Amino acid sequence: MAEDRVGAFVPGARVERAGAGEGPLAGLTFAVKDLYDVAGIVTGYGNPDWARSHPPATSDAAVVTALLEAGARLVGKTKTVELAYGLTGENVWYGTPINPAAPDRFPGGSSCGSAAAVAAGLCDIAMGSDTGGSVRIPASYCGIYGIRPSWGSVSLTGACPLGPAYDTAGWFAARASLLRRAGEILLPPGGEGPLGPLLKVQEAWVNADPATAAALSDGLAATESVLGKALSAQVSPEGLGAFYEHFRCAQAVEAWTSLGPWIEATDPSFGPGVKERFAAAKAMDPAKGEAGRAFRRVVQARLRGLLGGGAVLVYPTSPAPAPLLTASLSEQNAVRERSMGVTAIAGLCGLAEVTIPAGRVGGAPVGLSLVAAPGRDRALLELAERVAAMAGLPV
Amino acid sequence: MAEDRVGAFVPGARVERAGAGEGPLAGLTFAVKDLYDVAGIVTGYGNPDWARSHPPATSDAAVVTALLEAGARLVGKTKTVELAYGLTGENVWYGTPINPAAPDRFPGGSSCGSAAAVAAGLCDIAMGSDTGGSVRIPASYCGIYGIRPSWGSVSLTGACPLGPAYDTAGWFAARASLLRRAGEILLPPGGEGPLGPLLKVQEAWVNADPATAAALSDGLAATESVLGKALSAQVSPEGLGAFYEHFRCAQAVEAWTSLGPWIEATDPSFGPGVKERFAAAKAMDPAKGEAGRAFRRVVQARLRGLLGGGAVLVYPTSPAPAPLLTASLSEQNAVRERSMGVTAIAGLCGLAEVTIPAGRVGGAPVGLSLVAAPGRDRALLELAERVAAMAGLPV
Repeated sequence: MAEDRVGAFVPGARVERAGAGEGPLAGLTFAVKDLYDVAGIVTGYGNPDWARSHPPATSDAAVVTALLEAGARLVGKTKTVELAYGLTGENVWYGTPINPAAPDRFPGGSSCGSAAAVAAGLCDIAMGSDTGGSVRIPASYCGIYGIRPSWGSVSLTGACPLGPAYDTAGWFAARASLLRRAGEILLPPGGEGPLGPLLKVQEAWVNADPATAAALSDGLAATESVLGKALSAQVSPEGLGAFYEHFRCAQAVEAWTSLGPWIEATDPSFGPGVKERFAAAKAMDPAKGEAGRAFRRVVQARLRGLLGGGAVLVYPTSPAPAPLLTASLSEQNAVRERSMGVTAIAGLCGLAEVTIPAGRVGGAPVGLSLVAAPGRDRALLELAERVAAMAGLPV
Repeated sequence: MAEDRVGAFVPGARVERAGAGEGPLAGLTFAVKDLYDVAGIVTGYGNPDWARSHPPATSDAAVVTALLEAGARLVGKTKTVELAYGLTGENVWYGTPINPAAPDRFPGGSSCGSAAAVAAGLCDIAMGSDTGGSVRIPASYCGIYGIRPSWGSVSLTGACPLGPAYDTAGWFAARASLLRRAGEILLPPGGEGPLGPLLKVQEAWVNADPATAAALSDGLAATESVLGKALSAQVSPEGLGAFYEHFRCAQAVEAWTSLGPWIEATDPSFGPGVKERFAAAKAMDPAKGEAGRAFRRVVQARLRGLLGGGAVLVYPTSPAPAPLLTASLSEQNAVRERSMGVTAIAGLCGLAEVTIPAGRVGGAPVGLSLVAAPGRDRALLELAERVAAMAGLPV
């Protein structure tokens, strides 16, 4: 592997594994976020206490096996936000990866190392995971492609949980064709076929900085050249704030259910932000979690009714480029809240979302998201490749 | 039959026929627009020259047979605009039916007699036909329920054609349950199941008079109480004017193809408006018809992608109550153009549309339309019944 000049990989978890001799991904390299098991080494989950308290994995995660069998070569394990519970990509224990596209800004997380590794050209494909935006946000911030697949479509066997009802196994690539080719291995069969119409979700565009929206206008136009002129639509009459709040509460209850027993037994040290979020998860009123799950049922029915015929949503993946590394914790939290109102659309509803590195604001990347009904991942990846070609982006 | 105090029925085409002794529609009465064949009498199609030049029908239209076999009693044939080519409901040869809900206004057409008969309580169910709005508009104007079913879903065997790619066999009733019960006989099986979300088509609401939109707010709220709060959406980035124009051109080419040979051979007399429309149909540039068909393919894909998952559009059926009987021909044409931009949505795309008598403006009725994907007619009729119950309208 090339020198890790951006600090994308987990120190002390060096691993390389050759892929099967032949296969559709022969000649390609991949890395996996350090919440996927690789047999023989400890899965660190971004936290030294987690690493210390867990034995080496005895088998490979399902996605590791699938990519190796397809011929890709495993080149390492990448850094993650502690227990995947954060969106900036900061990791105070192992060092925050450098954002290769905007070195004065956060890389985004929680799949920070995977995004940085792909953006720096250290591997062709990198597995992340996405519960509340952990692939989409770092892809947007680092100027690469990323997919949050339909919930349940890609196996999480051998992956650490955060919020199982929302966790998905997503991935990154610097070229649209590579994003699609990995999907051909990882996704279940089916889901191809035409998509359309394109729906411009007004509240998500209004939620973005005007400079971000303007930077994505060419990407939007390229998408329209494929799917026809976008229709105007709204998906959240309750407001994106309600999406954020319900997602936050439901996810917190899940996170505490999944990870609370280990936290209570171990009393681990957490860095800033992560510590507060787990404290809030512990204290979360179960009624708020139930309200979040009820809200999810309502918006799932709504979005599946809206997208079930093939319609595609389009909006800025993040409302702005990555925050500066100098941003305060309260500034980071404001960005988190504003970002997650939009990422919660696919998050709550189990939708497929691909982000395309379609714009720059003052040199820093911002992504354009295309979102489709559950199960339409293959069609969405093909669409993203066509849009990328129309927009003159890396295919 | 009760006395025809509104001039709904065709003079000289009196016919009554008992239904099958038992059946789901036993005890109900129905009438059919005088473009459906009833064996033994001439189908007049609203024009004396048509009646003179056609022999008596030798068999019943498919919908007549179906309703009779279901136990309903046929009580007569109702007036139509000449060759179904008009929306006011005027017929200078047989007399324009009186709008029972607003006697100083047009009844709407072309299925004017069927709408008037139902609104006056002269029968329970009346068959109309709808190419560009000929059931929906008179239902809105007369304050009753009407359905334009999915294109192709109800047999037009034994019905005179106007524009076969757009013609549908629709019907009227004064109560939502009767509209549904007729559908259970006339529609193919299937298409039940949940609908949603509700999409408020902004351009169609803006197209309506403010007073009409306001009069329908309670109906909209009742619909939202069933399907959840309406999302805002747009279906025509080209503008409703483009929908009108493409529909007009494509329909005109079809109308001339269907009816031009008879018109050329017979040189019939037509009343005002109808005469000009057939002259325009004859002169229509075939390239405009082809452009209309191409536009239809585009918007069909769009609307089917938008509605295929169960979404329902909602908007005012007509932009205003019926025009006054004193309106000039140019005023009538302006209403026609403004109305057909909206009716062309379902018309071009083959969608199912039900109109509910949800509002009044200065005493005159206006309808609220619910529109669903092709094939979802049964679900739409059930939805209309639930909405009617919520809104306190006749169920």
